[in-house]
Amino acid sequence: MQKGLSVSDSDGSTFAPLVVLELAPNTKEEAVEWLLKRIRDKQQDGGAELLVEKLSPEDQSTEKDNPNVYMVGASMRRLLFGAEDVGLFKEFNDGTMRSFTCANRHNFKEFQGDGDSFLSMAECQYIIKHELDTLRAKGEAHVPGYPKMKLYPGKSVIRRIQSKGILVQIFPLHENEELKRLSFSWYKQFKLSFQPLDDIRHYFGEGLALYFAFLEYFTFALIPMAIIGIPYYLFDWEDYDKYTVFAGFNLVWCTVILELWKRLSASLAYRWGTLSRKKAFEEPRPGFHGILGFNPVTGREEPLYPNFKRQLRIYLVSVPFVLLCLYLSLYVMMIYFEMEGWVLMIHDEEPTFWTGVLLFIPSVIYAVVIEIMNLIYRYAAEYLTNWENHRLESTFQNHLVLKVLVFNFFNCFASLFYIAFVMQDMGLLRQSLATLLITSQILNQIMEAFLPYWLQRRRNKKAHRRVIKTLADKELPLSDQVKLEADMSTYLGTFDDYLELFLLFGYVSLFSCVYPLAAVLVVLNNVTEMYSDALKMCKVFKRPFSEPAADVGVWQLAFEAMSVIAVVTNCALIGMSPQVKSYFPESDTQLIMWVVAGEHLLLAVKFILTFVIPDIPKNIQIKLSRLEFESLEALKKRRQTQGRKCWRARAPQKRISDDERRGQPFRY
Amino acid sequence: MQKGLSVSDSDGSTFAPLVVLELAPNTKEEAVEWLLKRIRDKQQDGGAELLVEKLSPEDQSTEKDNPNVYMVGASMRRLLFGAEDVGLFKEFNDGTMRSFTCANRHNFKEFQGDGDSFLSMAECQYIIKHELDTLRAKGEAHVPGYPKMKLYPGKSVIRRIQSKGILVQIFPLHENEELKRLSFSWYKQFKLSFQPLDDIRHYFGEGLALYFAFLEYFTFALIPMAIIGIPYYLFDWEDYDKYTVFAGFNLVWCTVILELWKRLSASLAYRWGTLSRKKAFEEPRPGFHGILGFNPVTGREEPLYPNFKRQLRIYLVSVPFVLLCLYLSLYVMMIYFEMEGWVLMIHDEEPTFWTGVLLFIPSVIYAVVIEIMNLIYRYAAEYLTNWENHRLESTFQNHLVLKVLVFNFFNCFASLFYIAFVMQDMGLLRQSLATLLITSQILNQIMEAFLPYWLQRRRNKKAHRRVIKTLADKELPLSDQVKLEADMSTYLGTFDDYLELFLLFGYVSLFSCVYPLAAVLVVLNNVTEMYSDALKMCKVFKRPFSEPAADVGVWQLAFEAMSVIAVVTNCALIGMSPQVKSYFPESDTQLIMWVVAGEHLLLAVKFILTFVIPDIPKNIQIKLSRLEFESLEALKKRRQTQGRKCWRARAPQKRISDDERRGQPFRY
Repeated sequence: MQKGLSVSDSDGSTFAPLVVLELAPNTKEEAVEWLLKRIRDKQQDGGAELLVEKLSPEDQSTEKDNPNVYMVGASMRRLLFGAEDVGLFKEFNDGTMRSFTCANRHNFKEFQGDGDSFLSMAECQYIIKHELDTLRAKGEAHVPGYPKMKLYPGKSVIRRIQSKGILVQIFPLHENEELKRLSFSWYKQFKLSFQPLDDIRHYFGEGLALYFAFLEYFTFALIPMAIIGIPYYLFDWEDYDKYTVFAGFNLVWCTVILELWKRLSASLAYRWGTLSRKKAFEEPRPGFHGILGFNPVTGREEPLYPNFKRQLRIYLVSVPFVLLCLYLSLYVMMIYFEMEGWVLMIHDEEPTFWTGVLLFIPSVIYAVVIEIMNLIYRYAAEYLTNWENHRLESTFQNHLVLKVLVFNFFNCFASLFYIAFVMQDMGLLRQSLATLLITSQILNQIMEAFLPYWLQRRRNKKAHRRVIKTLADKELPLSDQVKLEADMSTYLGTFDDYLELFLLFGYVSLFSCVYPLAAVLVVLNNVTEMYSDALKMCKVFKRPFSEPAADVGVWQLAFEAMSVIAVVTNCALIGMSPQVKSYFPESDTQLIMWVVAGEHLLLAVKFILTFVIPDIPKNIQIKLSRLEFESLEALKKRRQTQGRKCWRARAPQKRISDDERRGQPFRY
Repeated sequence: MQKGLSVSDSDGSTFAPLVVLELAPNTKEEAVEWLLKRIRDKQQDGGAELLVEKLSPEDQSTEKDNPNVYMVGASMRRLLFGAEDVGLFKEFNDGTMRSFTCANRHNFKEFQGDGDSFLSMAECQYIIKHELDTLRAKGEAHVPGYPKMKLYPGKSVIRRIQSKGILVQIFPLHENEELKRLSFSWYKQFKLSFQPLDDIRHYFGEGLALYFAFLEYFTFALIPMAIIGIPYYLFDWEDYDKYTVFAGFNLVWCTVILELWKRLSASLAYRWGTLSRKKAFEEPRPGFHGILGFNPVTGREEPLYPNFKRQLRIYLVSVPFVLLCLYLSLYVMMIYFEMEGWVLMIHDEEPTFWTGVLLFIPSVIYAVVIEIMNLIYRYAAEYLTNWENHRLESTFQNHLVLKVLVFNFFNCFASLFYIAFVMQDMGLLRQSLATLLITSQILNQIMEAFLPYWLQRRRNKKAHRRVIKTLADKELPLSDQVKLEADMSTYLGTFDDYLELFLLFGYVSLFSCVYPLAAVLVVLNNVTEMYSDALKMCKVFKRPFSEPAADVGVWQLAFEAMSVIAVVTNCALIGMSPQVKSYFPESDTQLIMWVVAGEHLLLAVKFILTFVIPDIPKNIQIKLSRLEFESLEALKKRRQTQGRKCWRARAPQKRISDDERRGQPFRY
């Protein structure tokens, strides 16, 4: 728990603020009162039983600040119940990870005394978020004061006021002490060290920790490819054997690292208690709308939206839109090639230093345009997927990821494919690949970390100056900290970070046999990426709610799909190289046959490797089976005693009829 | 329950015999007594609490009959407890399938009165098998009377005496009335009708019913291919477009039917209550041996066998052996081709009717040899997999299936691949395919059903004549029925049946564009196969214990792998056909490129289809989620009340400390 920060409750007791609720400044008084009452109400009465208090009015230094900012906390007892509700896994006395239960609390390893430091602040905040999210309307027909904001029994109150704009934002508070410690071990020491994954998980939750684990793993996994790639680049080896060997190694290596990642992520998820955590039933996402009906699963009243309408929207609008965007991207690509040709012409006419520089300009411009198009498309895809009106956040995410992936893949790699397979110009391919890779890396890091960081710093400084001119380096009072954090940008999840890695993986794997240096560049990029991502998490963004995650989800599939495509492209590239062609001087047919055979062989090897390497390490598999076995045994025992008990209650008649009803005994 | 058959218990009451235990005739008296006592003992005392009685001595008509035959049954109450133990799913009052519990028994749909007809006989027998299997040694160091047959606490008694040969066989009894009814609706009516799947499941269990469902589904699924194939055969269409269209249709069709089968099998498994049934912890298989240690999962004492030793056996012995067998099969294939050439030569020298017949001889001989080799290899693979000493029956089965599949695939299709891609003789391919297909079908049906049936009938007749010369068509007394059934062959599971379908699927899909009639032949074969399989289950074999199954398991994967290989072979065949070649007169390269592109496209379509078609139908998905949701809610409720209760017990101090420990309240 954060020391020194507390808020006094309405009945005088104090509590540590964990989560900030910011309501719209013009929210009607009665709605606010109703909301606070519902949050404070006992659970028996359908409330969330949390502590909530307004950020004291005297803290509001200026008039223009939003007065409707509320701090939410909870008693330790309430948090522990909540931990049970969300199905948190904690380390048990015997070293296994088990679902926390209050009844069993003293058997958990880190539970001491009253369990004060048992839950990390991130966990507390996650619990509060969950409890707020599951705070449901009872009999209210609408939000008090807003007759148009309909409610129905069972509707999540928070989601409704969020989708209607009353709730401006909800975010967890940073812990300054913890953050300082974390950022020191994370990026302030200028030495090579492993990512402090457990600390990251402790502060930001499993989802983000898994991203950083993946980033680190991916970087290490590329090092062998980078090391092998360097001599190829330096000595310009272009022999047939070495080429093929390098590409073959790369392709198998890609499969192996993806498989091993599954094992590593399973280990991490086990250690963090998310591997076997059961998912709660998913609520409709905030923006979901439809006609009120009964959910066939829960039997609760909630909006329903017919599936065929969604399918129609997907196939009649979204798919054509994506295709249109792809066409547009193709069009831009053709413009790039025209520019390229035009610049080349100029350079050929009078080659000077400046025309030499000019040669790179089209690629750089194209790289910038690609980034901009990706950005615009990203928003369009989000809008469109939102409009498709998916019921669950997870299906929404899947559809969004699919749309964005297809477009980004096409947008980033179409020109390279064109150069490689239509123009067949390996020199240009190498040059374009390098320019695209380097430009997009630089742009990305600026856009994503340094620019926001710089903006943030400027804003911070202003705020500092304004509020506390004297206490320069001391701790800020709560109200100021809340205000500072409320102004920070919101971290939108790991989507963009994974997407970036996905594209980098594409640059490395798709054309690895043409440009072996790509792996080196990506490794270098990833090292700085780690620092800039850490910086942005600690300094630029609001603290995100922790997101329990057991794996990288749909990204595993995306990376695997990329590695399959890489097999095809690399085999084709090898088949087209003049060195290989010279081995089959008399017939192209034979060459192609060999290449196709090799490709099929590689694909088969990939497939077999996927099967042979188990997804979960043996020792974790054993631990999981042990838990499952124990719960099965316990269930069996409980059932037996229960069953026997309730049978005995009416046993006497039964006993007799049991023997009697066998019909006529038939002796022989 | 079977009427008219009963056995009197030691304390005079009678029970319906369900399962027969046959011990070796020379088993020592003390071992028998010990075993019977353990089976009869109360569960509290570690027994199985079943009823067991010797088949009355006066029934032993001749001296040479085995006197050590025991009948096992159980009281209805015991069976219901057992049903709970094995986690049987039954239909609940609200129409969903739920795990049966005794406490809740009156809420199950078919539970009336004492639950007399609630469990089918197959279920009762399965329960008894399970209870016998989990009858564990307590303090015994060895089987009484046999100091060498070591036991340790927790070892399954039945598995030990089975692996040591004391227990000769254990099998469930047939129900004659039920069987008559089933066989009438199944195969005695000579009209086309659907398989009586629910009745089959009721009598033989889910595993076998799923096989027949698959057989039926597969047959129906091939009908469109057969119908489209007929005109191709009749009118000798060999146009490029039609060919490609047919092959393309076939390949996509194969994927679609395999995906739809998953949905159908999920529906069936849901209806039969096996879809969400939890697997119990798997015991070591009977033949498994090793050094006594502690199982890391259960903590029980049991033999352990180091994994690396098993890996060594697999990679140093099994893999080379399989390769050797493949080489042998290749060698036989070359002999076949030599024979073929020799016969062709004879025919060419003086073509008469007899040399014309002679032309078919090598193919027929080769087909017979293939079947024989498959049979021998089957035994070798079983021996070898047994020797690899897998702990679990399921891993044993997987390794066995893999070995047998690879060899059978190679053995059956190698010659066809050779003809297609090395000799490139499409006429010969067609002829060989037809000969192989027809011969192996005929051989299979004879070997698998009619021969055993004929042997069985002869044996039955002898037995009838000997025992009851007068009661010709009346019901047999129990002892004679037991004797008759004990002499029947044992059904070894669905392995061979699925294997046969797998190979047929190969004949249809691998070369479908060359021999469109294959689908017609396979459809015809499957129709007779249904009859002969039904006949063999009802008349030839002992009743098998029912095997709960939710899907066809590893076979789904095998069929899918075959359909992937089929894409490759069909594309290659199309690429090689002269009609297609004539479209690219100037360059082979372009032709191959197109074919390869088409192949990749088809593979991508397959892959996408697999993703797009959900494995479980929507309505079943909803039912499953509803159950899961309900159990989650119930768990939450129980936990909340439990947790609160045990918290309250020590609440007073807590309440105060909760508020106090927040450190110095800090006001601002």
